[in-house]
Amino acid sequence: MAQAQVQRMSRLMVKTLRDDPADAEVLSHKLLVRAGYVRRTAAGLWSWLPLGKKVLANVERVVREEMDAIGAQEVTLPALLPREPYEATGRWEEYGPELFRLNDRKGGDYLLGPTHEEIFTLLVKDQCTSYKDLPVILYQIQNKYRDEARPRAGILRGREFLMKDSYSFDTEDEGLAKSYALHREAYQKIFARLGLDYRICAATAGAMGGSKSEEFLAPAAAGEDTFADCPNCDYAANTEAITYALQPVDGSAVPALEEIPTPETPTIETLAAYLNVAASATLKNLLVKVDGEIVAIGVPGDREVDLGKVEAHFAPSAVELVTAEDFTGRDDLVRGYVGPQGLEKVRYFADPRVAPGTAWITGANKEGLHAKNVVAGRDFEVDEYIDSVVVQEGDPCPACGTGLKLDRAIEIGHIFQLGRKYADALSLDVLGQQGKPVRVTMGSYGIGVSRAVAALAEQHADEQGLCWPKEIAPADVHVVAAGKALQTELALDVSDKLAAAGARVLVDDRAGVSPGVKFTDAELIGVPKILVAGRRSAEGVLELKDRRTGEREELTVEEAIARLTATA
Amino acid sequence: MAQAQVQRMSRLMVKTLRDDPADAEVLSHKLLVRAGYVRRTAAGLWSWLPLGKKVLANVERVVREEMDAIGAQEVTLPALLPREPYEATGRWEEYGPELFRLNDRKGGDYLLGPTHEEIFTLLVKDQCTSYKDLPVILYQIQNKYRDEARPRAGILRGREFLMKDSYSFDTEDEGLAKSYALHREAYQKIFARLGLDYRICAATAGAMGGSKSEEFLAPAAAGEDTFADCPNCDYAANTEAITYALQPVDGSAVPALEEIPTPETPTIETLAAYLNVAASATLKNLLVKVDGEIVAIGVPGDREVDLGKVEAHFAPSAVELVTAEDFTGRDDLVRGYVGPQGLEKVRYFADPRVAPGTAWITGANKEGLHAKNVVAGRDFEVDEYIDSVVVQEGDPCPACGTGLKLDRAIEIGHIFQLGRKYADALSLDVLGQQGKPVRVTMGSYGIGVSRAVAALAEQHADEQGLCWPKEIAPADVHVVAAGKALQTELALDVSDKLAAAGARVLVDDRAGVSPGVKFTDAELIGVPKILVAGRRSAEGVLELKDRRTGEREELTVEEAIARLTATA
Repeated sequence: MAQAQVQRMSRLMVKTLRDDPADAEVLSHKLLVRAGYVRRTAAGLWSWLPLGKKVLANVERVVREEMDAIGAQEVTLPALLPREPYEATGRWEEYGPELFRLNDRKGGDYLLGPTHEEIFTLLVKDQCTSYKDLPVILYQIQNKYRDEARPRAGILRGREFLMKDSYSFDTEDEGLAKSYALHREAYQKIFARLGLDYRICAATAGAMGGSKSEEFLAPAAAGEDTFADCPNCDYAANTEAITYALQPVDGSAVPALEEIPTPETPTIETLAAYLNVAASATLKNLLVKVDGEIVAIGVPGDREVDLGKVEAHFAPSAVELVTAEDFTGRDDLVRGYVGPQGLEKVRYFADPRVAPGTAWITGANKEGLHAKNVVAGRDFEVDEYIDSVVVQEGDPCPACGTGLKLDRAIEIGHIFQLGRKYADALSLDVLGQQGKPVRVTMGSYGIGVSRAVAALAEQHADEQGLCWPKEIAPADVHVVAAGKALQTELALDVSDKLAAAGARVLVDDRAGVSPGVKFTDAELIGVPKILVAGRRSAEGVLELKDRRTGEREELTVEEAIARLTATA
Repeated sequence: MAQAQVQRMSRLMVKTLRDDPADAEVLSHKLLVRAGYVRRTAAGLWSWLPLGKKVLANVERVVREEMDAIGAQEVTLPALLPREPYEATGRWEEYGPELFRLNDRKGGDYLLGPTHEEIFTLLVKDQCTSYKDLPVILYQIQNKYRDEARPRAGILRGREFLMKDSYSFDTEDEGLAKSYALHREAYQKIFARLGLDYRICAATAGAMGGSKSEEFLAPAAAGEDTFADCPNCDYAANTEAITYALQPVDGSAVPALEEIPTPETPTIETLAAYLNVAASATLKNLLVKVDGEIVAIGVPGDREVDLGKVEAHFAPSAVELVTAEDFTGRDDLVRGYVGPQGLEKVRYFADPRVAPGTAWITGANKEGLHAKNVVAGRDFEVDEYIDSVVVQEGDPCPACGTGLKLDRAIEIGHIFQLGRKYADALSLDVLGQQGKPVRVTMGSYGIGVSRAVAALAEQHADEQGLCWPKEIAPADVHVVAAGKALQTELALDVSDKLAAAGARVLVDDRAGVSPGVKFTDAELIGVPKILVAGRRSAEGVLELKDRRTGEREELTVEEAIARLTATA
């Protein structure tokens, strides 16, 4: 190992700021900019400054080591990619405006890779011909591109961001399960080494397609995901991925359906007020267009429809809300008074809460009329049950029934069992043991490397600034020369000795900067140990401060070196 | 340092090819594809396979270490960049079709960075406010993008390629000279460590602008650059950058200009044949349009005009050849019979070989007539001398006059003193020692990291395949199990011991692959040392072969480990 270098603040390009940047909304954005780790270049496009680059490289190293440890092979594929493979899987269209598309000088269509399933599939198709060549796990650490509608939250959601993406290729389902399990374990090691607090949550597959998937979520106020955590059992899931089993009830005692006049009650609120019932007794029927076809979705009147879930269910078909024009020529659809009973021309979907046997007040499909005692399975049929309401705090845990706790979190990793979707689209077969072609089954696995830095900043900070875990910090120790020539001389001397003993050292040797400013900067920058050459420098005594706990102790140079390199 | 891993060929994704790929023109392209290092994804877009990625990472590491050693600070700026800064310096237009341009979802103009002068200038403008913050050298190792008209030669000229680019910022010219010198020395160390044969050559600045620049050229048949090497002195230059001093001669004894009938001699060949003189006695006057204005360029009749040099001289103005239509309405321009004398409406440029006092046969500006004894400075004036002929083998060395030797080479590095061009365009000032703003002077410095891999492959190969220098090779030793279970067992055992002793080991443990195929693959892959577990495995004796020299010797396991790790 090359001897660790001493980074001198007097030469390092690091400009700390006292105030939060005006456009910063979340903690990590504020602190990483203020402490001189990153700088905005354009909307959603970030520059990593010297300190930030060190932290990023540390995360990268941990990810690389743990991927290598499970036998994954590192490669690097282009970020600029041709259209054709993405056309073959349908993703060229499906990605919509999130995909950066461009033309080359000959007019050929290209894209900036958001993920690389297609290209890895083609690579393995080219390189592997027999079952003997599998299983194989390939990974890369590379910039990815997504044209976010509203890039926000600093590096948490950029338009160019560093990811580790890996892909597994197996001939058997059991092999895929094993590759998936290897990743799951590697991710647990990675996030533990990074010092991230995280939960493994059931997830939806989203734009990837495929069957099983889990997310690694780091709880943080700045998170864009909401996850449910059961206080009673080990269930945890992204709220978008929570599904409930259908639980039919006995509705045989419910009286017959009865139409009741309800003038001027086109909304759930007006209806519940008019009838003096709880909104939860009513059935709300949302009309949406799925690739242009109007369908209805039934949910209890007190619940919001989660359009994200509905879109995920119908993907890749496009889901739109209906507008007034859509009712033209549709006498069967009475705005504000839609009910599932007798709605023959419209496919009817419902949340599992609208289980067979449950009775509802809902529209009578006639202006100013509603119907009560409308029983699912008796008065109307549900074409398909889909989880479609926004999960709320206190909703029952699907596993044990306890009221769920909801929290915000940052998605730092995601693992998918893709199955044969991409292999089917791109005809990836290898010769099997029986001498016949076998279709390959795949997994895809991501870690947001740059995003992990933001998640770390969110979880490891206090009023004074950042507070990095040791393995990720830009240095092991931040030496502060708090005084004049004497202090600077001691600070530089102890820095050289620490570096010689293998520690990574940042030393604040700036001339003309007061000790107070240096202390403030040290707290903001967040190196785990701060070693101050101050008052007792003439005696060769330094003060060691733990950035996290604030504990201080006085040490001689020799003691400081022993202390700081014993754990280095 | 983490213990080096054993890479097992039975698990590694490496598929060697016996035949050259059909589209491969140059040696490095053929060998890197055949040996399983890289794979073409699309025109000019390459995937680095596991072995190739290791070599690329090794080059990256050497570059990083030597950049760090001169105090350069690593950062990472976006590859996707907004138009505005490039608009401000004029490069958004000047780059022409080589620049990948694209729009985001809101219609904003973006580009994929070809080099980052603008963005670094703005970063330093943001981060550095005082002369005390300078000098600073920043670098990044990042994918760059250029939309080549004809991507060829494999990774030698891709459209996405890995570069180290660095930028220096100084307040004084002496500071820039020092930053430049630091880079020059670092580059010498880097290329020496990589094991590249190279020359430092005077160069033109090209699209960067600026004053002084030098190229690091690696001689190779596949090279796209031609450089001149003086066999007598230490002069070396890219032929595009060679300039000759003007050497006037005494033309006072030349008789008066005389027009002579030369029917049907519109070309130098027909003229020389008709008059029975050497082509070198004639003066060729090439007409070109510079931003639409017709100008003439005079060179000796036996020499070709180097349009690249002419374009570089007039840049950023566009240079085009004239067409028949351009003569419409220009009675002063007689096609095939143009001469500089009396050519009043056309600016006249000439190569220094057309020095004052030299006498020529040239067009008389009348159909079918030429003039002889036309003396530069007497019969016509040259508006400006510009080096404009294609340099040939044997042309005199500008330094000592010896006949130059010409060779093909690959540009692996380029260092520029940019001066204040970008600082002027983007108003980069810092507060100077006198308390007044001082304009910053810059340097820009590049190393083609992926291209260096191709240059290494060009320079380190033989009939059998690649032959990597030790520091860059994907492994230190390639262990071959040449036989059945006994040999495989010994090969794996010695591999583990070598790895434990710190060596990077690739072991060919593939079952069902003949020793002959394994030997061929080992020669092709080009790890410096090949250790074979073969005939004498039962005795624990291995054969060690030096890939480069072919020298072989028999060793025990212990001897092999001692030998291979002594230098590891």
